[in-house]
Amino acid sequence: MSKQQRDELDAAIRAFPFDPSVTVEEARAGFDAGQTRTLPGEAGARSVTIGGIAGLELYPEATAGTLLYLHGGGYVVGSARTGAALADGLASRAGLRAISVDYRLAPEAPYPAAVEDGLAAYRGLLEAGVEPDRLVLAGDSAGGGLTVATLLAARAAGLPQPAAAVVFSPWTDVTLSGVTIETKSAADPLFDRAALEWFADRYVGGADPADPLISPALADLAGLPPLLIQVGSHEVLLDDSIRLAARAAEADVEVALEVAAALPHVFQNQAGSLDEADAALDRASRFLAERLARESIAAN
Amino acid sequence: MSKQQRDELDAAIRAFPFDPSVTVEEARAGFDAGQTRTLPGEAGARSVTIGGIAGLELYPEATAGTLLYLHGGGYVVGSARTGAALADGLASRAGLRAISVDYRLAPEAPYPAAVEDGLAAYRGLLEAGVEPDRLVLAGDSAGGGLTVATLLAARAAGLPQPAAAVVFSPWTDVTLSGVTIETKSAADPLFDRAALEWFADRYVGGADPADPLISPALADLAGLPPLLIQVGSHEVLLDDSIRLAARAAEADVEVALEVAAALPHVFQNQAGSLDEADAALDRASRFLAERLARESIAAN
Repeated sequence: MSKQQRDELDAAIRAFPFDPSVTVEEARAGFDAGQTRTLPGEAGARSVTIGGIAGLELYPEATAGTLLYLHGGGYVVGSARTGAALADGLASRAGLRAISVDYRLAPEAPYPAAVEDGLAAYRGLLEAGVEPDRLVLAGDSAGGGLTVATLLAARAAGLPQPAAAVVFSPWTDVTLSGVTIETKSAADPLFDRAALEWFADRYVGGADPADPLISPALADLAGLPPLLIQVGSHEVLLDDSIRLAARAAEADVEVALEVAAALPHVFQNQAGSLDEADAALDRASRFLAERLARESIAAN
Repeated sequence: MSKQQRDELDAAIRAFPFDPSVTVEEARAGFDAGQTRTLPGEAGARSVTIGGIAGLELYPEATAGTLLYLHGGGYVVGSARTGAALADGLASRAGLRAISVDYRLAPEAPYPAAVEDGLAAYRGLLEAGVEPDRLVLAGDSAGGGLTVATLLAARAAGLPQPAAAVVFSPWTDVTLSGVTIETKSAADPLFDRAALEWFADRYVGGADPADPLISPALADLAGLPPLLIQVGSHEVLLDDSIRLAARAAEADVEVALEVAAALPHVFQNQAGSLDEADAALDRASRFLAERLARESIAAN
């Protein structure tokens, strides 16, 4: 990765700063326009419903395992379609079938709607016959926090855990107590406290933002599967990743934290034009593939 | 890795608890006896002096790069020979020449002797013509803290940084302020606060334990090379790794933190009998190899 690549990315993001006076509709339209691109797996993609939740399925014939993907967008914007790019990046590399789901969004459906839908999709995959050791989860930003919350909800429901999970720049503390919200504010080209508050206010509704299912960096993570966290060092949400790793280690969960130097929020979206983005997806895909059980002989 | 392997390792360590009434000579003899084993690279090993520091060189003909290794032992016990096992584990996997050095030990030579010797060896390798982009550092426990301190000393001396560094269960806070000294005390089969104090008292001498060259978790780490930190979750020193990662990320250093579930201090020493130890050395070797410049065509 060259410094020139990093500087160009930083400038491109700063050209469209988040404006807290935006309407929800404007924010959704802008996010959709920025995130939607042609995907390698698009040709074989199809709409599905899993556990009552609508989703987009990529690589339906892939055999290495199944990926449940939870898109980013602060619990307010984004869709199965916007999340499909990173789902495709993982699935194409690891030989996975991927399902990116449309969990309900705030403010129309604040917490706990997203967690209920994440759990419903996860339960739906198990009930459809997917073995938990052949199933992995991933998500970015709010979808990364939701990934961990879904694992916690599955634990509480007595469901088995999946083989592994990967989260990109997860938002894990909606109370906004992370120290890097201040210390990285100048370095972060995308977010500051006001932007995070815009999303938090809409998602939390009347709930307590310190609820572990809203802010899993504050949760007891015992029993969770191996977890890979990737984050850039130019992020106000950096501390959300560091504290998630610390909480996982505290609970004896296998965890890897990878901090990419001087890169912004969910830099993996730049795969194809930023070397470090492709390298990060390569590592994340390997992490998932290595932890998925091989298909049993009996199943062949 | 099986739970049985982990339980056997835990029990084996608990059978020989650290006794703070031990003499320095007894501690050194016990550590040497526990750490010394036959090495794959032993046949070709030879004694060397680099920058005035005695060392043991393994794989002198290897061409992928050079590894400077700093052994563990709380700055009081251990030797180039005890460090050679992990140096061999990295060097054999990554195709490296490795030099494990005998930096001076406390209490005979308290801080800053170890850092002076680490820097002298590093400078000696550069003066011997090793290109910094063909050079990596690694160390375990106190040698992991010393690895980071050596990088800081090299920065202060105006020397170039190496291509990368790997630290296993590094001791990075000799002030003993890490929260896991309390929270992981029951889980850690090897160390508790009293054991750490025994080593700290002898190393610090009349210095300030918060000196960044003694406790690099408290340092500004700007300018350091890519850093991989591996640690077990059954360690009172877990927080030393987490805070080192956080400090590196704060300073825009590329850093990866890998926490192995329910494993003890420097579990990589169990390579050959503990699956996760071999896997960790495989990943660490890959991390180093990927960051070493390939030998230039002109040099061939």
